[in-house]
Amino acid sequence: MLSSSDNKEIFLGIDGGGSKCKAIVMSGDNKILGTGIAGPANPLHGYEQAINSIAESAKLAFKDAGIDESELGHIVAGVGLAGVNLPALFKQMSNWQHPFKKMYLTTDLLVACLGAHDGKDGAVIITGTGSCGFSYVDGHSYIVGAHGFPHGDKGSGAWFGLQAAKQSLLSLDGLIPPSSINDKILALLKVKDDVELVEVIAGKPAAFYARMANLVFDSAEEGDKLALAIVNEGAEYISHVAKQLLKQHPPEISLIGGLTPRIKPWLDIDLQAKLIEPLYPPEVGSIIFAKQQLALQ
Amino acid sequence: MLSSSDNKEIFLGIDGGGSKCKAIVMSGDNKILGTGIAGPANPLHGYEQAINSIAESAKLAFKDAGIDESELGHIVAGVGLAGVNLPALFKQMSNWQHPFKKMYLTTDLLVACLGAHDGKDGAVIITGTGSCGFSYVDGHSYIVGAHGFPHGDKGSGAWFGLQAAKQSLLSLDGLIPPSSINDKILALLKVKDDVELVEVIAGKPAAFYARMANLVFDSAEEGDKLALAIVNEGAEYISHVAKQLLKQHPPEISLIGGLTPRIKPWLDIDLQAKLIEPLYPPEVGSIIFAKQQLALQ
Repeated sequence: MLSSSDNKEIFLGIDGGGSKCKAIVMSGDNKILGTGIAGPANPLHGYEQAINSIAESAKLAFKDAGIDESELGHIVAGVGLAGVNLPALFKQMSNWQHPFKKMYLTTDLLVACLGAHDGKDGAVIITGTGSCGFSYVDGHSYIVGAHGFPHGDKGSGAWFGLQAAKQSLLSLDGLIPPSSINDKILALLKVKDDVELVEVIAGKPAAFYARMANLVFDSAEEGDKLALAIVNEGAEYISHVAKQLLKQHPPEISLIGGLTPRIKPWLDIDLQAKLIEPLYPPEVGSIIFAKQQLALQ
Repeated sequence: MLSSSDNKEIFLGIDGGGSKCKAIVMSGDNKILGTGIAGPANPLHGYEQAINSIAESAKLAFKDAGIDESELGHIVAGVGLAGVNLPALFKQMSNWQHPFKKMYLTTDLLVACLGAHDGKDGAVIITGTGSCGFSYVDGHSYIVGAHGFPHGDKGSGAWFGLQAAKQSLLSLDGLIPPSSINDKILALLKVKDDVELVEVIAGKPAAFYARMANLVFDSAEEGDKLALAIVNEGAEYISHVAKQLLKQHPPEISLIGGLTPRIKPWLDIDLQAKLIEPLYPPEVGSIIFAKQQLALQ
């Protein structure tokens, strides 16, 4: 839990994902002193960029808090990162000669869950650029998905964007009926036909495709059949992930990530009723994690 | 057509794709003098690599023919390349300071079609690492697909492999029933579980996924439900592409590419009956193209 410390110690919390890295500095008695945001920090997409983004976001948060960055060497950092569920990346990041007094490293999934439920047992479904489900119950964590793009991350922003691009290309080829998605994609990417569309999307990463997710929901809300099929398939998958998580009997379950407001209305009605608002963001979950680890020592 | 020339002129034909570049040297009277194979030659995946592969395959073919490579500067080359359906790449390749006396550049699709039908009108469906349909009738060409991976190329080797990986991850997560695909993928990639599987497939290109296509067909032939669903979806798409091509009334239609023997039995029965064996490979189609262009001058 986000327990108050007696001393004046300050804590750094990091939430590093595929598109950005968020840092927060909090006092021992849980006052937010400063925040910072830097670039991507998923070591799967580059170790150097990940460590640079973490250090950069931390410095920005210190600057925001009016604390000299030389103090970085005196604080405890909780660091939650995408990608470190892969053992090789966890090891690589653990070996980083970090600038902090102490670093407690874990997955972005655990810190999201700890943040959402203030350190108590619970579950989270994350739908942002990527997607996954995570529960933490009685000391056991359980992951559904978190496989990455394009082979996994169904129901994520990148997945919705890729479906839109795929179906739009089939439609522009005359293989399936036209959809309002077609015009929306061409307009968003400022291209005039399928040849230009392919030229723009070739080789693009998940974050690029995630930009196209909103237009699928826009089309679905207008009643477009193709968009409705995509949205229903993605939402059905997320509902299915939730059902898997609920088998572990988490006391609470939250939906978080950038796609939350768009996808929530499409989930199973009984799941929507169960979802509670997350209490704290993942970067605060990283501080909760660091404090829990310190308390164990 | 692969018409005989009166003179002793020799011709070079190039078929450059995403995984390899094939070269053939033929005499004016259509005798094969030599062949060569080099690396990838799709300029979308790297211009330098493409021009190096073309030059390398040409030199190997000359060496095989027992002709000094200094002769490259005296021959006419027909070059069919993947990727140059994109105007920017066609322009870039056209501007290449190539080592030949003359280079006639066109798409891998046109040379495949010209080769399959000995320069006459016709259609081809290509299913290798990628997929597409192409017809050439009365001077008009018509393309279905050829959009690339992962947003397009349905029914291709890469598409089958990606479906296998996606569905296998869902199955290993307990979200869909087990399939014999799971064990086959883990064995092929020499990994033990979904975490290791994700580690191996993350960020891999189309050619990597295409290696997994055969196991989907193996499973389907054993009656595995998931594999049958994937194979039927891919084959249905290819049959649909053929129907689109047949609307242009090509005199003949052929199926070519590495996946041909696996996918052919799953196509619509009436389409299977229509398919004829290609007469010549695409690199010979490149020579036919060069001769046609020369004849126009």
